[in-house]
Amino acid sequence: MKIFEEIESEVQSYARSFPRIFNRAKGEFLYDEEGSEYLDFLAGAGTLNYGHNNDIFKPALIKYIEEDGITHGLDMHTKAKGEFMESFNEKILKPRQLDYVMQFTGPTGTNAVEAAMKLARNVTGRENIIAFTNGFHGVSLGSLAATGNSHHRGAAGVSLSGVTRVPYDGYLGDEIDTTEYLEKVLSDTSSGVDLPAAVIVETVQGEGGINAANFKWLQNLEVICRKHEILLIIDDIQAGCGRTGTYFSFEEAGVTPDIVTLSKSLGGYGLPFAVVLFKPELDQWKPGEHNGTFRGNNFAFVTAKAAIDHYWSDDQFSKEIKQKGRYVSERLEKIVEKYGEGNFTTRGRGMFQGINCVSGELASKITKKCFQNGLIIETSGADDQVVKFLCPLVIKQENLAKGIDIVEQAIKDVCDAENTIPEDNDYFDAVYHQSA
Amino acid sequence: MKIFEEIESEVQSYARSFPRIFNRAKGEFLYDEEGSEYLDFLAGAGTLNYGHNNDIFKPALIKYIEEDGITHGLDMHTKAKGEFMESFNEKILKPRQLDYVMQFTGPTGTNAVEAAMKLARNVTGRENIIAFTNGFHGVSLGSLAATGNSHHRGAAGVSLSGVTRVPYDGYLGDEIDTTEYLEKVLSDTSSGVDLPAAVIVETVQGEGGINAANFKWLQNLEVICRKHEILLIIDDIQAGCGRTGTYFSFEEAGVTPDIVTLSKSLGGYGLPFAVVLFKPELDQWKPGEHNGTFRGNNFAFVTAKAAIDHYWSDDQFSKEIKQKGRYVSERLEKIVEKYGEGNFTTRGRGMFQGINCVSGELASKITKKCFQNGLIIETSGADDQVVKFLCPLVIKQENLAKGIDIVEQAIKDVCDAENTIPEDNDYFDAVYHQSA
Amino acid sequence: MKIFEEIESEVQSYARSFPRIFNRAKGEFLYDEEGSEYLDFLAGAGTLNYGHNNDIFKPALIKYIEEDGITHGLDMHTKAKGEFMESFNEKILKPRQLDYVMQFTGPTGTNAVEAAMKLARNVTGRENIIAFTNGFHGVSLGSLAATGNSHHRGAAGVSLSGVTRVPYDGYLGDEIDTTEYLEKVLSDTSSGVDLPAAVIVETVQGEGGINAANFKWLQNLEVICRKHEILLIIDDIQAGCGRTGTYFSFEEAGVTPDIVTLSKSLGGYGLPFAVVLFKPELDQWKPGEHNGTFRGNNFAFVTAKAAIDHYWSDDQFSKEIKQKGRYVSERLEKIVEKYGEGNFTTRGRGMFQGINCVSGELASKITKKCFQNGLIIETSGADDQVVKFLCPLVIKQENLAKGIDIVEQAIKDVCDAENTIPEDNDYFDAVYHQSA
Amino acid sequence: MKIFEEIESEVQSYARSFPRIFNRAKGEFLYDEEGSEYLDFLAGAGTLNYGHNNDIFKPALIKYIEEDGITHGLDMHTKAKGEFMESFNEKILKPRQLDYVMQFTGPTGTNAVEAAMKLARNVTGRENIIAFTNGFHGVSLGSLAATGNSHHRGAAGVSLSGVTRVPYDGYLGDEIDTTEYLEKVLSDTSSGVDLPAAVIVETVQGEGGINAANFKWLQNLEVICRKHEILLIIDDIQAGCGRTGTYFSFEEAGVTPDIVTLSKSLGGYGLPFAVVLFKPELDQWKPGEHNGTFRGNNFAFVTAKAAIDHYWSDDQFSKEIKQKGRYVSERLEKIVEKYGEGNFTTRGRGMFQGINCVSGELASKITKKCFQNGLIIETSGADDQVVKFLCPLVIKQENLAKGIDIVEQAIKDVCDAENTIPEDNDYFDAVYHQSA
Repeated sequence: MKIFEEIESEVQSYARSFPRIFNRAKGEFLYDEEGSEYLDFLAGAGTLNYGHNNDIFKPALIKYIEEDGITHGLDMHTKAKGEFMESFNEKILKPRQLDYVMQFTGPTGTNAVEAAMKLARNVTGRENIIAFTNGFHGVSLGSLAATGNSHHRGAAGVSLSGVTRVPYDGYLGDEIDTTEYLEKVLSDTSSGVDLPAAVIVETVQGEGGINAANFKWLQNLEVICRKHEILLIIDDIQAGCGRTGTYFSFEEAGVTPDIVTLSKSLGGYGLPFAVVLFKPELDQWKPGEHNGTFRGNNFAFVTAKAAIDHYWSDDQFSKEIKQKGRYVSERLEKIVEKYGEGNFTTRGRGMFQGINCVSGELASKITKKCFQNGLIIETSGADDQVVKFLCPLVIKQENLAKGIDIVEQAIKDVCDAENTIPEDNDYFDAVYHQSA
Repeated sequence: MKIFEEIESEVQSYARSFPRIFNRAKGEFLYDEEGSEYLDFLAGAGTLNYGHNNDIFKPALIKYIEEDGITHGLDMHTKAKGEFMESFNEKILKPRQLDYVMQFTGPTGTNAVEAAMKLARNVTGRENIIAFTNGFHGVSLGSLAATGNSHHRGAAGVSLSGVTRVPYDGYLGDEIDTTEYLEKVLSDTSSGVDLPAAVIVETVQGEGGINAANFKWLQNLEVICRKHEILLIIDDIQAGCGRTGTYFSFEEAGVTPDIVTLSKSLGGYGLPFAVVLFKPELDQWKPGEHNGTFRGNNFAFVTAKAAIDHYWSDDQFSKEIKQKGRYVSERLEKIVEKYGEGNFTTRGRGMFQGINCVSGELASKITKKCFQNGLIIETSGADDQVVKFLCPLVIKQENLAKGIDIVEQAIKDVCDAENTIPEDNDYFDAVYHQSA
Repeated sequence: MKIFEEIESEVQSYARSFPRIFNRAKGEFLYDEEGSEYLDFLAGAGTLNYGHNNDIFKPALIKYIEEDGITHGLDMHTKAKGEFMESFNEKILKPRQLDYVMQFTGPTGTNAVEAAMKLARNVTGRENIIAFTNGFHGVSLGSLAATGNSHHRGAAGVSLSGVTRVPYDGYLGDEIDTTEYLEKVLSDTSSGVDLPAAVIVETVQGEGGINAANFKWLQNLEVICRKHEILLIIDDIQAGCGRTGTYFSFEEAGVTPDIVTLSKSLGGYGLPFAVVLFKPELDQWKPGEHNGTFRGNNFAFVTAKAAIDHYWSDDQFSKEIKQKGRYVSERLEKIVEKYGEGNFTTRGRGMFQGINCVSGELASKITKKCFQNGLIIETSGADDQVVKFLCPLVIKQENLAKGIDIVEQAIKDVCDAENTIPEDNDYFDAVYHQSA
Repeated sequence: MKIFEEIESEVQSYARSFPRIFNRAKGEFLYDEEGSEYLDFLAGAGTLNYGHNNDIFKPALIKYIEEDGITHGLDMHTKAKGEFMESFNEKILKPRQLDYVMQFTGPTGTNAVEAAMKLARNVTGRENIIAFTNGFHGVSLGSLAATGNSHHRGAAGVSLSGVTRVPYDGYLGDEIDTTEYLEKVLSDTSSGVDLPAAVIVETVQGEGGINAANFKWLQNLEVICRKHEILLIIDDIQAGCGRTGTYFSFEEAGVTPDIVTLSKSLGGYGLPFAVVLFKPELDQWKPGEHNGTFRGNNFAFVTAKAAIDHYWSDDQFSKEIKQKGRYVSERLEKIVEKYGEGNFTTRGRGMFQGINCVSGELASKITKKCFQNGLIIETSGADDQVVKFLCPLVIKQENLAKGIDIVEQAIKDVCDAENTIPEDNDYFDAVYHQSA
């Protein structure tokens, strides 16, 4: 099919890394038109925590469609929505003592972030929002101002305002707690940093290069927010829904955000869906102030409820994720140790891990080699220098091992090739550039 | 179920007008949990042009799910996407001599608008965009700047910049062609209106109060855009997909926009979906510059293709819409004539029509009365003063008649009540305020 | 002296039109180093209403300097400041029943405008400010947003926001009162024009091409401001201080602005000076919120007081200006009639008049020819198409006549030349472009 | 005279600290209407480096006025301007190997900063500008975005954009070189800090609390600017014109800015005046792009030339300033040692020094006491916690000593009072607040 070349825009990205036409998927596997199988360590960039077309949710979805359940109902009350909310309240919020109101925004992460930022600004009457170096929160204009990546920022075509950038945990080295800088500028009335409505933060920065914030840092951040009456927004779109080992990524740090954004794996089946959670006292929206046609995807309500009921009624799934997470850590550390020679390092938390290859070029060679060997895996970070392990959380242990084996072999092959071609200036330039 | 009261945010809007829990829908009907039937003249705010759960698309969707077709594939090539593109190209674009590239954005209208505005700004290197009084283009920060409604604008919490407002067709009375004002400020280097990247316009303003632009006005607008090398963006999210009688709402006016945004009924089945179409020479995106997790909803590819194949392979459906549109026009004109007494007027085009009740309060009384009689119908306009007829295009003639009958009866009842209660100050205040 | 070529920036403008080194000035005359005399119809762009180095003020200034009066005192109270304020209050404000507080800003017009806009925004809590097509209010970033000229706007290097542009009186033709458009967008909650803090307007637009607003239009503007509780700022920097025949340019229209900016001829002797006047209830500044090193130029206090005492203690000067204004009107009308042939028109009010030559090129030829004949006169307007008569108000009648004679001869010469060289395409293109 | 209370705006600031009506000044002394003498350690906030009404410049100024030299000439070439430029070029620029073009902006510091920022943005095509914590660059909207003080920022009434804030030297403690943070965010394409047009910096922050940057830090800053092709703007409005011991404050650090702003003492006599200096290759202004009525104050040209000719023809004055600076340092260090007890510290460079009293309240008590004893001295810093020594550079040694004696006595008195009133909660609260 040449149709993609003919009329699909140049803006496509993943399609360039994985130039196949896919037509079927199951669990941790994707299949192309020619029947080739690919192990999926990208998982919809964190959308497929429960795997592709999970058989536990599928019958509920088909039944719903067959019975002509509401497909599109704007923001009207539907049975599917009510049942999802009941499950989410009983099995996610209440057990964690989280008293949140739910807002169903347009079914994209960026729309949830836009709503969260609006709400914070409206409730506080302040404009400024603190965001962090290497943060990613979406590319519609409001979210984009909080996103760090210049590739995306540059596409705005207008100046992005209303956000002050502060160094993320570890950005100035391990010995500096960057929340101290934040505290200083907030306490200094002449710092030039206007008192913000909110801080928006990811506990693990996915697109920014799998940077996991220290729990102590997150706690300090919360303390500062409380002290200055700033709202704490945790953007849990990629790190949430179990990715780090708990439903919300902030649970283990013991912090309680004022506002939480969820999307990606929330819907369970990979369907467009997003929600903003916030403390009831912040629910100062007037009817329809933030609206949209596809608020509350009913198909996603059905599969999201199924996902919560099946995976989050007890702590079994959480334990399983953590165990797999430890396996990934061990494997990656060994790989780094073996091939590292100072170049590779591991990073991340739970099933949200990566190998920093320092150079984007090196990382790209590795992921290309992986794809040749049947593994779909991507990079992230400012220079795409981090190989990102984002496989479905439900992956079978043997497939998890197999995927990592493929990566290890790719690293070995690439390192061997590098070593036999010492004149690869691009690579050394890149490394030099990083460490300069 | 009290869950809605307990934990759903106050931001909900339609749920307030239609306080039922819906659980089933078919064609032009919605059903609540208690089995009551409602005729749907809201149709997902224009998303359900083909009705609820259309039986023509449903089997294809179920089959796709059953066979584990790709549900979520980021922006990767999938069989479903390719097949949709083929159909869209062959049956929509080619027969209309439209040479467009397709960009699949996040599956919301506002995301498509954000992408369109970014693209126009990037390609031209200019920041300003011309938007019109009473326009509605979404509520994420970029689109919101182009949206006119102060209720939505006020929720931004930051200033909305980069857009210059110009009066829409008819805004200064029928005798003034507002494109002349636009031409003047663009030709005057001291007008204070910076040369824009683009003009963004709806051919019929839905949320703005069913204001249909004259074809001549649209043609003049295109001429001005060409003269000043400004891109013409037609936001066809609500007016497109057949609503006005042709697939694109601009066909009959004979204009050819540089960029078109589509969403709402594009997916056919009410599933989240959005696309930006633009001339190939504008396709200057770099890979992934405008990204998002849910670009290209595969379920929607399946149903969108089915919709195009069934309804748009010939001009039968178009004729049918136009015929129904004429019926609606005739009925509404008669109603206005009968109960108007200077207060009611009709407006709109094709199956996108409304009755301007001058007062939002009056319109609200009418739609409430309709709901009591089993008809779901909403208002739009700055003061919600327009009763908006947005029923599925596939509605059976008898149900179309029945719905209008209900509206007519409601108008009669409300007018009778008004006349017998002369002290209704609110109403007269509102009317006075409007005409002041 | 080659120093100007060597190290003065290319940003210089008037120096290009009048390439002489001036070293002496008196009344309505400038003298260059070689002793040549120039009649000054530019008058410091409206700064020298009382002529160069007015002998009435000069002794007071020299005495002040000789006695070591305070030259620089930040915003501290000085005797000179107090005495100026007394005179201004007694002879300007009180006789006109104007109850204003005075703020001494940095001694530039743009700084006064910045302060006025800040004050309006702070007092109302709104961001938007209405400014008009072809308005000029300065080029620092805040004022520049309100200025219409793209030449100046383009130099900002950032987007200019917070201002909505509305057509000035006559912009849409004589039959349309553009305040009706303003009223409509302000009353329409979906117009996309956010409720503004203020309207900022010149009663006669100087840089914009000597466009004089109709008194009825100004009155309507005031009514709209009152209705919507919007502050009315009159920027009287160029039109004030007697230029139109009364001290303030808005007196004859019978409107009372909430805020007035003055500068240019306020200081009397051509010294940097600016003030903002506003109603006492708007004086919500906190100490030092709008500050600056040169607030309150003490030399200017001395000369400004002398100017007010001498010229504005009775209505003699006002009558004299009006009489000269009538003379200018009559002469210009005759010239236009004689050489017009549809191309020339007169415009303006009092001693603030111009001849619209339609083409900037034609106007430029005329002013160049004038300079060759010893007259300094400039153009204004979007295309520099208006020959601007801004001579000192104190000009001797014979010199006024002489200056106009020079212009008339220049017009004659240029018209003759045009007629004998029919191939001057630039000119005809320009004319065509204007009338297109 | 009650006129000040009656009609001068509440925005006045210095007038509140020194509630007298001044009417004469000479050298380092101000005199009020009642004949009281005040030693001036404020010196027009750095405008009176050569003292009040300097007798060396005065005759030249009076002669110029008497001979009807050009007072106001817009930006036209005048003899006075040419002669000033010659002197400035020969005696300031050439001896320092500085190859700069001169732009005469509106005669305020903020206008020079506006021009500098515009120029940097236009030349580079970038919008962002790096400014530092505690920086002060003026309060018109463009400059204000670069100013740190929330008191001034809050008065804008709109959001201030286009500037990224970075910690100034020493802001994160002595052990951290904050240029490393700047380097990191500029090298990191995902930092969220957009590549800037320029860095704007004061070598000694005056309003920010007399923070003197380390020379090494300034050198590192220059290196980073060169590396990333960012323009280095040094705002030398307060620190320049000899204040730190050399004509430009950056001379000793050995850095060469691309753009320099000067104002305050540039004019010599306290007259409004400002200039922007920049490298010739940056002179990409189009004629009149940045304009203004009072560009190039001719009176100031005369006195500025006299100041340069007299004080800057050799290095005598520079040596004298440095010697006085050392005296101030020694005295202040002794004072701090004596009364410090951990609360007082010295800061600054040359004749630009201060005593940090930690608490604004304490500093205020000291300056009030000084005023009672005939010394005019002010505070600066975020909390007005720094007593700022800004006396004329030409001050007689005995008066310098006398002024410091007064401050010392005031500190003693205040400390004694503090110690005998241990319940002064406000003070301890303030101290606690600072150290918290």
